Amino acid sequence: MTRSPGSRLLTEQPTTALPGLLGEHSVVVMPTGSIEAHGPHLPLSTDLLTAEAVAAAAVAGAVAAGVDAWLLPALAYTKSDEHHWAPGTLWVSHGTLMDTLVELGAGLAHSGVTRLVFFNGHGGNSALLQVASRELRRRFGLRTFVMHALVPPDQGGDSAAGELGLGVHGGLVETSVVLHLRPELVDMSTAVRSVPEHLTRYQHVGFGKRISFGWLSDDFGPSGVIGDPTGASAELGAGYFDAAVSAAVAGLAEVAVFDPAPPAA
Amino acid sequence: MTRSPGSRLLTEQPTTALPGLLGEHSVVVMPTGSIEAHGPHLPLSTDLLTAEAVAAAAVAGAVAAGVDAWLLPALAYTKSDEHHWAPGTLWVSHGTLMDTLVELGAGLAHSGVTRLVFFNGHGGNSALLQVASRELRRRFGLRTFVMHALVPPDQGGDSAAGELGLGVHGGLVETSVVLHLRPELVDMSTAVRSVPEHLTRYQHVGFGKRISFGWLSDDFGPSGVIGDPTGASAELGAGYFDAAVSAAVAGLAEVAVFDPAPPAA
Amino acid sequence: MTRSPGSRLLTEQPTTALPGLLGEHSVVVMPTGSIEAHGPHLPLSTDLLTAEAVAAAAVAGAVAAGVDAWLLPALAYTKSDEHHWAPGTLWVSHGTLMDTLVELGAGLAHSGVTRLVFFNGHGGNSALLQVASRELRRRFGLRTFVMHALVPPDQGGDSAAGELGLGVHGGLVETSVVLHLRPELVDMSTAVRSVPEHLTRYQHVGFGKRISFGWLSDDFGPSGVIGDPTGASAELGAGYFDAAVSAAVAGLAEVAVFDPAPPAA
Amino acid sequence: MTRSPGSRLLTEQPTTALPGLLGEHSVVVMPTGSIEAHGPHLPLSTDLLTAEAVAAAAVAGAVAAGVDAWLLPALAYTKSDEHHWAPGTLWVSHGTLMDTLVELGAGLAHSGVTRLVFFNGHGGNSALLQVASRELRRRFGLRTFVMHALVPPDQGGDSAAGELGLGVHGGLVETSVVLHLRPELVDMSTAVRSVPEHLTRYQHVGFGKRISFGWLSDDFGPSGVIGDPTGASAELGAGYFDAAVSAAVAGLAEVAVFDPAPPAA
Amino acid sequence: MTRSPGSRLLTEQPTTALPGLLGEHSVVVMPTGSIEAHGPHLPLSTDLLTAEAVAAAAVAGAVAAGVDAWLLPALAYTKSDEHHWAPGTLWVSHGTLMDTLVELGAGLAHSGVTRLVFFNGHGGNSALLQVASRELRRRFGLRTFVMHALVPPDQGGDSAAGELGLGVHGGLVETSVVLHLRPELVDMSTAVRSVPEHLTRYQHVGFGKRISFGWLSDDFGPSGVIGDPTGASAELGAGYFDAAVSAAVAGLAEVAVFDPAPPAA
Amino acid sequence: MTRSPGSRLLTEQPTTALPGLLGEHSVVVMPTGSIEAHGPHLPLSTDLLTAEAVAAAAVAGAVAAGVDAWLLPALAYTKSDEHHWAPGTLWVSHGTLMDTLVELGAGLAHSGVTRLVFFNGHGGNSALLQVASRELRRRFGLRTFVMHALVPPDQGGDSAAGELGLGVHGGLVETSVVLHLRPELVDMSTAVRSVPEHLTRYQHVGFGKRISFGWLSDDFGPSGVIGDPTGASAELGAGYFDAAVSAAVAGLAEVAVFDPAPPAA
Repeated sequence: MTRSPGSRLLTEQPTTALPGLLGEHSVVVMPTGSIEAHGPHLPLSTDLLTAEAVAAAAVAGAVAAGVDAWLLPALAYTKSDEHHWAPGTLWVSHGTLMDTLVELGAGLAHSGVTRLVFFNGHGGNSALLQVASRELRRRFGLRTFVMHALVPPDQGGDSAAGELGLGVHGGLVETSVVLHLRPELVDMSTAVRSVPEHLTRYQHVGFGKRISFGWLSDDFGPSGVIGDPTGASAELGAGYFDAAVSAAVAGLAEVAVFDPAPPAA
Repeated sequence: MTRSPGSRLLTEQPTTALPGLLGEHSVVVMPTGSIEAHGPHLPLSTDLLTAEAVAAAAVAGAVAAGVDAWLLPALAYTKSDEHHWAPGTLWVSHGTLMDTLVELGAGLAHSGVTRLVFFNGHGGNSALLQVASRELRRRFGLRTFVMHALVPPDQGGDSAAGELGLGVHGGLVETSVVLHLRPELVDMSTAVRSVPEHLTRYQHVGFGKRISFGWLSDDFGPSGVIGDPTGASAELGAGYFDAAVSAAVAGLAEVAVFDPAPPAA
Repeated sequence: MTRSPGSRLLTEQPTTALPGLLGEHSVVVMPTGSIEAHGPHLPLSTDLLTAEAVAAAAVAGAVAAGVDAWLLPALAYTKSDEHHWAPGTLWVSHGTLMDTLVELGAGLAHSGVTRLVFFNGHGGNSALLQVASRELRRRFGLRTFVMHALVPPDQGGDSAAGELGLGVHGGLVETSVVLHLRPELVDMSTAVRSVPEHLTRYQHVGFGKRISFGWLSDDFGPSGVIGDPTGASAELGAGYFDAAVSAAVAGLAEVAVFDPAPPAA
Repeated sequence: MTRSPGSRLLTEQPTTALPGLLGEHSVVVMPTGSIEAHGPHLPLSTDLLTAEAVAAAAVAGAVAAGVDAWLLPALAYTKSDEHHWAPGTLWVSHGTLMDTLVELGAGLAHSGVTRLVFFNGHGGNSALLQVASRELRRRFGLRTFVMHALVPPDQGGDSAAGELGLGVHGGLVETSVVLHLRPELVDMSTAVRSVPEHLTRYQHVGFGKRISFGWLSDDFGPSGVIGDPTGASAELGAGYFDAAVSAAVAGLAEVAVFDPAPPAA
Repeated sequence: MTRSPGSRLLTEQPTTALPGLLGEHSVVVMPTGSIEAHGPHLPLSTDLLTAEAVAAAAVAGAVAAGVDAWLLPALAYTKSDEHHWAPGTLWVSHGTLMDTLVELGAGLAHSGVTRLVFFNGHGGNSALLQVASRELRRRFGLRTFVMHALVPPDQGGDSAAGELGLGVHGGLVETSVVLHLRPELVDMSTAVRSVPEHLTRYQHVGFGKRISFGWLSDDFGPSGVIGDPTGASAELGAGYFDAAVSAAVAGLAEVAVFDPAPPAA
Repeated sequence: MTRSPGSRLLTEQPTTALPGLLGEHSVVVMPTGSIEAHGPHLPLSTDLLTAEAVAAAAVAGAVAAGVDAWLLPALAYTKSDEHHWAPGTLWVSHGTLMDTLVELGAGLAHSGVTRLVFFNGHGGNSALLQVASRELRRRFGLRTFVMHALVPPDQGGDSAAGELGLGVHGGLVETSVVLHLRPELVDMSTAVRSVPEHLTRYQHVGFGKRISFGWLSDDFGPSGVIGDPTGASAELGAGYFDAAVSAAVAGLAEVAVFDPAPPAA
């Protein structure tokens, strides 16, 4: 038997393949999921399975488009401190996640990786990943990037009209995408609208507003859901998924050539 | 002699005044500056002096508007890792800054503070302050907020047209504000335009775009400036400053009453 | 749509299912893999895919045998410091792995888990997992266990005669099992015997002997393989795999009822 | 506008000024204050404002005397664990303070600083600063020094007769100096004598005695004051302040030339 | 006076003797004891005094046999977390013990040591010492080894028939050895059999079995003893001791020449 | 056999003896030594053996004087960073030593200890022990004390005239005491005067002066000795030792009754 050349999972390569495998424009993608409460209708692994699915499709699409993209095994357990109160949330502290990312960054740099994308499925990781992406740039010279699997509304993404821009957790988009990817894991009979409409009273403080605030998911009510999943469907999910993959493919293509240095005159 | 009642610097109170001094709607403001390279024309302490000046004026304005706002001594030395290469940058690591914020948060909660604003003068702190604001909410029950002294363009703020949205460090706004506040610390004769125009080629990756990247300030060229200070003036600075103070006063007023919990039916 | 009841992946449950889901005799299984050099013939993810495959089959088998067993997402990146020198080894330090295990242990205990099995696919984790299993017992009251996916010869498992008891990494057993599970990832044309036969000269010091020694995989030669994969086959692998699953099923059944306390008189 | 040359605050320089600015005999002074309970009559920031005022005057005096002395922004929040129980005490742990000092030391050494003085306004920092001064010497080659803003009696300084050598916190000297510097922050009507006279019974154990003891400020009584502020006055304070500045100027002059190495023969 | 040449305690040498003192085959032995509950009949220092006595005799024996063996002062306080509940157990966490071992390893390597043996008297340290022995090999190039003073039954050693293989703490062997070494520290009138016989019901889980479990010493009953000391005697102890020393001497002789690298062809 | 009652080594007690053994006035003494370069004439373990010998004699003397004093095994390896450059110096960092002391403090408090003395043989530990003594007081309520085995001149002790107050390491006192205790470990033929006389030029900066400085032992010259051992003798050593023991006995007697709280009126 000889090895199938087709896998784009970098870790399915043998150690001896790595020297020379990756070039200056190769892009290595690490999905970061989470295991955390997503309300009664969605599985704990919602962010993980979403990040993995979008990332895998995006890497495949990018390769098809000529980008030398590679996938890494996902980080399943990340920083879900905002859901710490809920059964099933399995999380690590900011310090442990940073240490993990730094140590993996060291190994990736040692292995010839030059461009690393954190492909993030959990909004609660975003700020820390930005801290990490600078740390890895400084310490290992890696070119680092943070992309969202599904851009959450508090970070510039769309939110359905009925969610008033507040669909940040377990709402229409996430629920639809899981209905598309793994319908057997969703129980729409328990999906309930839980939109903190009173937040619209505030002009300055809020999700994606000028003043951010430190919140836990039970600050808005006992369900921990922040959004309105009731209109979710697999069809919508397919659309969101395809859009996310397309955006990610385009993003990876740009990541492959991005250079902050001014061009030589 | 009896104590002057006028100071809004909380630490000018004696320990015995604190029990009962602060109520549910009191707002305590901690400026976070930085000591870091800001090009040849601006002092290392640009972010510190800006954060302190805006915060002090904003607290005074908020008090005048009926908000029970209090100021804390600034954190002068914060996370300036992106300027680590430049002489005069004095910085602490992400871990040390987090530990500091957590421990100060514990003391503030123990002292009766319920609403804490990180009033941030250095963009490189923003992500970490968001991590911290959640950590302090979870561990000490504090209501925490992150405000920018001057909103940088990579976080939603304006940038002058000539800066193409890229005036994130040492550019028109910062330079003008320091000219307004401390003109003797600015040497306009050394101010040079340093706008990484080539970044506009990229659609997806960039300051404030969908895909963030881990950057150091010398990734864009040797000066470390990212922006165009050449048009700066004290007059412009006065305008930026006043706008920043007004925005902060309005923000503090909202912070004082912000409540994520749904109103009782 | 309602949720399919069949999944034994605990994280495919919603948060609301957890209270009451797990009882005193429920067993939760966390596979611990690794991403590390396994010679030229095996993929970096050998330990991860092996641990995941054996664990999944063992959980299914245990459930069929009446044990309330549940699976968790694997830890892909663990402590592979002995292979730190080799491209593609992606590892975390002992401290970071301990912190991760402790923090996940806290979340599991908070979620109602009482019996936790570290189902280990990488020999280099064994000692640390033992330290962790005591730590989690002390701090969270969890009943903790460490099982090997494939028992390595330096920890009491069998080794083929031709390996002289020295087939601890990338040898006959591992290679055969990957040939069984994922033949397309194995390149037998590059499999080379690399048995440190000179170690048999030593009576007291050695793998599984009375005196252990601190080794790196390149201490024995440049390939990093320690064993003889040349006789490996998918057929042998099927046998090893089935034996491993059977042993694990029997082990999980005992784990479900194990009690160190003396029976009441 | 061109930069005013007069500022001795090092951080008011631009990054580009630093190479060449500091020489072998330049002395950089970092005040270390504290925010901690100082009884009902003194502000929480007593140590901070005292350290800053003495340090600024001492740097100015040293410059006038021909020493190339520079000031740094103060560390406001330090190790006030002995007052942890009191509202308003805002402190960091020994570990966080050490990390801060080490990281700032790295930046200072990178910026060309060779002589660093911790100018300490809080007795509770003294031991840790000594640990730090050795650590910075070893790791970065800095020549490091620890000076007291006001030498406390438990570290060799004077104490008024009525304080029996026990005026270590909030007593005559500190109160007088704040009356001199910021009279509006002192409320003498609440100043109460709180001298632990019973400590004079002990020959061996005590402040500044052969056997030191680990104390918290409420070990001696509920006020946390250890001393007798009742005789304090701005006039006394002016004298103490001037003496402190003079001593500091003389100290800085010696620091500038101090060399532990034996002179070449 | 000139220095006596006889001491084999390395730390009784002066610093100036070290360069050149130790060669490639020198073996340095660090005993690791513990201070922990050993039942009512044995002192807290049982593991410490045992490790020190066996190690000292073994070093002397090895020297007599031509090995250049040296002793270090013991680590008295180690990881006794399984006895944390019992008065008199004085222990450090896994992290602190690792840090200690790593830092001492750095100093030993700096001092010319190339072969380091952790000579362990406390079973609870074994796993951590294995983690440490790899860490020191990787970071400092030390050849590291872990030996047991008395091999415990859960790590391959013998256990008396009456203990059913369960004499892991305070049982026949340990008690006899202390009766031999320090009879005045043993109170046989309080020695009680405490063998967790019910563990023999389990096939797969148990001390030294295929599945290890995380245990605390009070999991098996309130005494914390796991074994049967009632038959202990000084005569038995002398035999166990002599056997342990003989085994250690043979081990040290092999350690002195052990080389994992394949012999040159 | 029943246990001899005579030992004052607390760790020679069984766990069951501890409840009730120690009362409010019991004093537990932990010697802290060091393993570090002491010049060519003294062993690396000078501070360890000195601290152990003085402490043992002092505990015995205190017991004879009616104090319920107990000894603990010494910490052999402590913070000798100032001698890091010299072969044979085996040391741990400030952080590791603090962690060790804190964790042992927790165990001691759990075991009924209320008064703990760090009996210090190494000047380089003094500052850290003061930090630790406060930390243990705060966290565990222990009454903590720091005593010196031999008071060094930079901490208020005597220094021979010929040493000009500069005999802080390997000088007359230490050498004489080791000649008294372990003459076979001293080689007077290599003892050389190494007094940094030039330090007397400085008025403000120096050992035990108003301004302390961060020093390494090779800052003063290559030998690392700071003092004049040439006049040392066993006779002098006997005198120093007896004086040290007498002072320690008196100190322990006071420690047993010391109370910082004001007497009830």
